[in-house]
This record gives sequence, C-alpha cells and structure tokens, in this order.
Amino acid sequence: MAKEWPFQIKIEPLKEEWFKKAWERLDNLTKPKGSLGRLEELAAQMVAIFETPYPKINKKLSFVFAGDHGVTEEGVSAFPKEVTAQMIYNFLRGGAGINVLARFSGAEVKVVDVGVDCKFENIPELIDKKVCFGTRNFAKEQALTREEALRCIEVGYELAKEAISEGYNLIGIGDMGIGNTTPSSAITAVITGRPVEEVTGRGTGINDHFFQRKIEVIKKAIALHKPNPEDPIDVLSKVGGAEIGACAGVVLACAERRVPVVMDGFITGAGVLIAYKINPLVKNYVIASHRSMERGHQAQLEYMGLSPLLDLNLRLGEGTGAALAMLLIEASLKIYHEMATFDSAGVSKNLH
Amino acid sequence: MAKEWPFQIKIEPLKEEWFKKAWERLDNLTKPKGSLGRLEELAAQMVAIFETPYPKINKKLSFVFAGDHGVTEEGVSAFPKEVTAQMIYNFLRGGAGINVLARFSGAEVKVVDVGVDCKFENIPELIDKKVCFGTRNFAKEQALTREEALRCIEVGYELAKEAISEGYNLIGIGDMGIGNTTPSSAITAVITGRPVEEVTGRGTGINDHFFQRKIEVIKKAIALHKPNPEDPIDVLSKVGGAEIGACAGVVLACAERRVPVVMDGFITGAGVLIAYKINPLVKNYVIASHRSMERGHQAQLEYMGLSPLLDLNLRLGEGTGAALAMLLIEASLKIYHEMATFDSAGVSKNLH
Repeated sequence: MAKEWPFQIKIEPLKEEWFKKAWERLDNLTKPKGSLGRLEELAAQMVAIFETPYPKINKKLSFVFAGDHGVTEEGVSAFPKEVTAQMIYNFLRGGAGINVLARFSGAEVKVVDVGVDCKFENIPELIDKKVCFGTRNFAKEQALTREEALRCIEVGYELAKEAISEGYNLIGIGDMGIGNTTPSSAITAVITGRPVEEVTGRGTGINDHFFQRKIEVIKKAIALHKPNPEDPIDVLSKVGGAEIGACAGVVLACAERRVPVVMDGFITGAGVLIAYKINPLVKNYVIASHRSMERGHQAQLEYMGLSPLLDLNLRLGEGTGAALAMLLIEASLKIYHEMATFDSAGVSKNLH
Repeated sequence: MAKEWPFQIKIEPLKEEWFKKAWERLDNLTKPKGSLGRLEELAAQMVAIFETPYPKINKKLSFVFAGDHGVTEEGVSAFPKEVTAQMIYNFLRGGAGINVLARFSGAEVKVVDVGVDCKFENIPELIDKKVCFGTRNFAKEQALTREEALRCIEVGYELAKEAISEGYNLIGIGDMGIGNTTPSSAITAVITGRPVEEVTGRGTGINDHFFQRKIEVIKKAIALHKPNPEDPIDVLSKVGGAEIGACAGVVLACAERRVPVVMDGFITGAGVLIAYKINPLVKNYVIASHRSMERGHQAQLEYMGLSPLLDLNLRLGEGTGAALAMLLIEASLKIYHEMATFDSAGVSKNLH
C-alpha cells in the first residue's frame, strides 16, 4: 500500500518560531494573558499557518460535496434518497442552511456532485465531478473501487488547489448525502478502533428500530470487507462515500498549500480522518468548528486531538458549523490586529 | 424588604403560543427537525420575546460599566487599581477587546462610569453616572449603602430604557473593574449557597498565595456582613460593586421592555443573579453568551438554568463574549427568515 499519489503529498509541520512571534504580540495586548482563550490560540495558529505577522483572510469558500449511498437500501435513513438531488437544487437556489450561514459569514458556496444518483442536465452552477451514481450497497459489496475512492479524493484535492490559486484562503467543507452518517460511522469505527455502537447515532432522526438496523448493517459490513485501518484508501473504498473522499482531498490540498480548512461535523470529520491517516500533519491546518450531536464525532475529535469551537447541538451538516466558525476565526484576527498594546494604550501591566 | 422600585418592575413571562408559531416555521425549513440545535432555540426565543413572526435586530449595543473596588486594598487582584481608569481611555480610543469584537459584530459601545475611583475631566464620550469613587473595602465595611446600591441598579435601568427608546433591540452587558471578580464571587456564594472555594477563581491571574487570601477575604466579609440571600439589594450593597448593580439594572429594563439582553461572563453574571433574585422572570430575556473560565460562572448558570452558547475559555470580561454571541443570535434569525421550506423548495419530508 501507500504507493498512490495522496501519500506523496508534502505537508510541513507548523514552526515554533511563528507561534512564538504570535504569542509575543498576543501577550502584549491590553488584556490579562490568555484571557481571550481560544480566540488567541486561533490567531496564533493563523500566524503559524500563513507564516506572516499579518495574517489576513481574503476570500472564504464553503464546499458542499454531494453523494448518494447504496446502503440506504438497507433502510438506514429517515429521508428518501431522492432528497440528495432535491437538496442540490435547494443549494443552487440559495435556500438551504449552508447558503444562509455562508452568506452571513461572507463565504461563497460551491456545490459539487461527486456521487449523486441523479443525472443532472445542464446546470452551470453545479460543479460536475461525478465519480459514480451513488456508492454500491456496502452491506453486500464494497462501496467504491480503490480507483474510484482515489478519484473522489482527487476531486476535492484539485478543486481546493484551484480555489487556493484563485485567492481563497479560508476553506470550509460540507456534505450532502442521504444515508451518509452510515459510512461515516463505519469509517470512524474502523479508524479509531471504537465499537460501532459508540460511534453510531440517529442521523437525520431514525427511530429505535432503524437505529438498531443501522448498527447491525455497519457491523456486518466491517466483518464482511475487513477494511484495513492502516490503509485509509482501503477504508474509504470499502465502507466510505464519494463526498467523504472529496472532503479528505480538500484537507490534503489545504495542508499542502498552507491554507486553514474548517471541518464541519461528523461526515466531514470522517473525511478529515481519512486525510489524517494519509498524513497526520494535516491536523495543523484543520480547525474543528463545532461538536456535532452525532455521537461518533467526539471519537473523531479525540482520535485526532482536535477541540471544537462551538457546541450548539448542530447535526445538519452541509458545512453549516464550519460557516459559523469562520466568524470566530475572523474575530480572532481582528483581536490580533486591532487591539491596543499595553504600551500604546498606556495601561499598567500586572503586578504579580 | 422588597419595597423599593426594582421589585415593582413588571415583567411578563414568554407566551407558549409564540414559541409554537416559531417551531411551526422552524420544523418546516429544509433540514431534519431540530438539526440546527441552539440556533433554532435562539430563533424561537426571539420570536417569543418580540412577539412577532418577523423578529429583526435593528441596532445592537454593548454597555461597559466600570467601577473600582475598595477590597483591592486586601491584595486580591493581579493588576493595580489604576488600570480601571486607564482602560476607560483605552475603551474610548477603541483599542480594547470589546471595541474590536463589538465593531466586528456591528454593536455600538457605550462606556459608563458608575463607580471609578478617578475624577475624569470633560470626556464627552464617557457616560458619567458615578455613584461612588470606588466601593468601600468590604473586608472592613459594607461596599455600598443600600441607597447607593439602588442607584447603581437605577443607572443601568435608566440607560437601558433610553437605549431601547432609541431603537436598540439587542443589548450586551460588560464590565471593567480591577478586583471585581472578588465581589462577584461573594455575590455568587451568597445567592447560590455554594461554598466560597467553589465559586472563586484567579481573576486576571493571581498566584496561589493571593488566591488563598482572596478566598479568606470573601469568607470573612460574608461572616462579617451576613448578607441576606433573599434580599438581593442587601447582597449588592454589602459585598457587591457599582458596575454589577448597573448590569442588574439593564437586565431588569430589557426584561420589562421585551428586549433580549446578552450576559457576558462572571461579573455580568453576578449582575444577572441580582436581577434574577429581584424577579426570576428576567431569565426569559437573558441569553448566556459563553462559559467563562472563572469557575463561579458555572454555578451562576446552573442556579438560573441558563446554558451558554460559546465555550472558548474566555475570561476577559468587558462584554467580549456577549459581543461574539450577538453574531449567533443574528445567525439564528437569518436561518429563521431565509431558509426555504420543504414545500417551497420541493424537498421530500422524512419517511419515518
């Protein structure tokens, strides 16, 4: 394994010297040291990612990757599969949650078909990068071939590289795909090693009966395909999803090009996990936006050592939490740039 | 007791019918029910506070109330008392944390001298409502007379009423006052009944030695003055602070006039506690912005049954957390107004 291109992507660790520079300034602003908590940490991370004392967000982008899931045949979701395509139209008309919150935070939205089971005709606003018409039902066969899984990652990787070359320097990832908490739970169980029960939630809101069925489907699929946790492409292809692969690709491109990437909830978290297993250094460039209500999200965050900014009981996906968190990232830079220092304001420092 | 005017302020509970109207709309937006978590709850609260299906934030205001504390003579703070006045100039020049974050969230800042121990000459931007030149050292005598305590509440109450009449309909409260975590801990211990150790933190960052002294000072003051937890004016006057009283006044005015008021951290929380003991119905109009690093804040939140929106390890005060939370309140209304419904977007509803 580990011969394909994503394993060869070069990612640099963040340098201590840039954190030092950032903290020197932060500690001189007119406030008790560290009293702006996570905002200060965010500002320091931005300085270290961009390697400049003047980090600035120029253009913000929210990707929404969409895909369908053959495993919905097993009755694991509360919504019919057609909703994925219906929601694509909703995104393109600006009526979905991500549209509203991205407008509010000043981010552009790009909607990408990576694996929707619908033939869209002539929609210029929809970015057509279709790898498949939905994954295969992984209760019976593997979701994607290894080749397809790699192509999904490549979709995200190439689109993010293109966006970065266009000047976007804060990128959020979001997902749409009826049934996609099921592959996300499977990926999370395999990679983190946690029991399926611990990382499986109710998605869009299934009842006890369907919840038990979902757990059984995931357990059986893992027993059937035996995805290798040390080979993230194997995991993605056997029990993954197209949109999850694309999220992983964005994370890899952002980390390679030194652009902060904002993770949303559980589904994008599965994508970040895949990228993290390809190269753990991606973690330095990822901002965990919120703690999702989907219980497996916590396992993902703990596995990667990430700590979310918001705890608002969100579980919509689409990148909605990421869009909100962009506001906090910008706020952190405002603090960093606009607050007066003790010297400039003539304020006394602490006594002891 | 309970004869003074603040106990006569009329506050209405929120009406179930407005929550019902709000949830009818929220449940028809193109998302799984409740999947935007706290944002949906906030939107419903705004509908019920404003009693309109079209709640809108017109003008936002952040009050910063400043006061000094005689108890700093006991060595309970890491910063010298002069910093309160120095920070006033910093606020007026726009260089403090609250200035930066209020600008970012689109709120105006009003700085109010309620009890600073400094004679300011001719500063038109500073709202002069001085009740005292700092409180008395409550290790020795009570901090404020009952009359002074009532006047501090009145300062906040009258300023908030005026602001509301000028069209502000989202009001944040903030504090500045070297030493003011000490009265806040005292108030919190008395009102919530928790041990002093459990509700006392390190404020701006004192070491172990001064931390122990701070706890002793508070314990002795409570033993000396025996503030009556059922008489919040008694508590405020014996172990309180001028800026804390003003915060309580804003909360009372906002609740009376049906305007949402955003609590900041531990010091404003002490003010909200005072208002809550005057009339627990204020709680309906209060939004808890963040969970402060000051440990007593959690006790305040639990006592009033409030749940904060942000958990960013903030402990600066000034209203910084409240300013950030205003963004989330506005985001909640954008969701409420701008998202498409299942019908309008032609999206199928859930199956089971």
